Amino acid sequence: MESFGARLHRVVGERGPLCVGIDPHPGLLERWGLDDDVRGLERFAGTVVEALGDRVAVVKPQSAFFERFGSRGVAVLESTIRQLRTAGSLVLLDVKRGDIGSTVAAYASAYLDPSSPLHVDAVTVSPYLGVGALAPMFELAAAQGGGVFVLALTSNPEGAAVQRARTADGRTVAQLVIDEISQLNAGARPLGSVGLVVGATIGQTGHELAAVNGPLLAPGLGAQGASAADLRVVFGSSLPAVLPTYSREVLAAGPDVVALRGAADRVLADCRAALTGS
Amino acid sequence: MESFGARLHRVVGERGPLCVGIDPHPGLLERWGLDDDVRGLERFAGTVVEALGDRVAVVKPQSAFFERFGSRGVAVLESTIRQLRTAGSLVLLDVKRGDIGSTVAAYASAYLDPSSPLHVDAVTVSPYLGVGALAPMFELAAAQGGGVFVLALTSNPEGAAVQRARTADGRTVAQLVIDEISQLNAGARPLGSVGLVVGATIGQTGHELAAVNGPLLAPGLGAQGASAADLRVVFGSSLPAVLPTYSREVLAAGPDVVALRGAADRVLADCRAALTGS
Repeated sequence: MESFGARLHRVVGERGPLCVGIDPHPGLLERWGLDDDVRGLERFAGTVVEALGDRVAVVKPQSAFFERFGSRGVAVLESTIRQLRTAGSLVLLDVKRGDIGSTVAAYASAYLDPSSPLHVDAVTVSPYLGVGALAPMFELAAAQGGGVFVLALTSNPEGAAVQRARTADGRTVAQLVIDEISQLNAGARPLGSVGLVVGATIGQTGHELAAVNGPLLAPGLGAQGASAADLRVVFGSSLPAVLPTYSREVLAAGPDVVALRGAADRVLADCRAALTGS
Repeated sequence: MESFGARLHRVVGERGPLCVGIDPHPGLLERWGLDDDVRGLERFAGTVVEALGDRVAVVKPQSAFFERFGSRGVAVLESTIRQLRTAGSLVLLDVKRGDIGSTVAAYASAYLDPSSPLHVDAVTVSPYLGVGALAPMFELAAAQGGGVFVLALTSNPEGAAVQRARTADGRTVAQLVIDEISQLNAGARPLGSVGLVVGATIGQTGHELAAVNGPLLAPGLGAQGASAADLRVVFGSSLPAVLPTYSREVLAAGPDVVALRGAADRVLADCRAALTGS
């Protein structure tokens, strides 16, 4: 079975290094002329699928905006996932789950077991209970060709107190996360299947990403965000593993399908320029 | 509107200090003679509601075990929540969500807005992105009489590296979480509405819980778990705010409704003894 890392490497090679979020918050539904209900959600997600499913490498639905509508919202998420995968996008579901024991195994089964109605290519997870507690997630991902992206360094100001706290051996919490994931990816080619979430705007923090050997999901590029120079500061020699993720810059162009495609093309061009330093 | 803290104080006064989890993992479904499918899930949850909804203060469904079955599992969760609330239990939904900005607001709306099909009395959240990032959750909880339980100190061995890392001012990450929640609860009577999750078996860790003024959800009591003496070590003068939570010790008695009630009565007696030191 092709690993998630290999699939991601292949699809990014074909479509370019870009992840676009599906974040239908109430204000955005309104700007698209949609009602803030399940029908509006369905129209929103369907439009993004139509516009981007056949051209963007990775699409990242944010689970919270579907959970808002309960089981009917989750049913829309299921059909959105199916449509995206049929159209050739990899689906990274942003759920930031994290727990221990049989509960982590249940989350793994919900999102990474091919027989689940919510089966996706990869999910985001949160390591407050320790990276080791997420082991059932990594194991099912490895067995089924799925991917996992672990929160490491986020760019929101409240995150630093936790993520840059010092562990007993002097490393930061984030560096501990980075190092544990690096071990999981060791030796994988062309790319490991366990990624990290690292904000593109965090600046010089002294964290060492060179050994990760997995994808680095990077929010924060864009008009008011990180430049190519900023990216080199944060990611250094790991720049080729960066997968930039955009939401509002693309979604604000909707609901017109052609305009959404144009916006995605523009941010992809920005990404290519930023990642190659050109 | 009665705050969550006040409702919890009242219901615990009436029914006793006990939270019981609904954790239908595959092995447990099998032991109950149920299939590992949506119908089995529905039977399992319905049996727990029938047995405990009219007598246990707080019931804590674990979302992961419903998400495993996609939107149909979430529909079972919706009806389980409704039935529990009708029967008089407070529902603490164990989701451990955590994110930033409009995404946290969407999670708040999913679980703490009375118009949501998944509206519950309280949820668990995870602070890897910082306690401050969870503000929209605390705000909606306060506005709607809901509660939030923030992960602080968990008893799994992998949790310590993150939770006991030292922030810039020398406090641990967990103590930072404790202190920020203490501020949110300051002055609330009889009890604040923002709680913490603190494992009953963590032992002497030097953390100071005296100022929390909110409920302390404590997994880890039970046959192989913490004793009354252990509890005094962990919780000190905050013992009256402890809400012990059990799952397997109670659920293993099922599917017989009378046996489930007997098991809940026994652990409640244990809890009363442990919390009063008798």
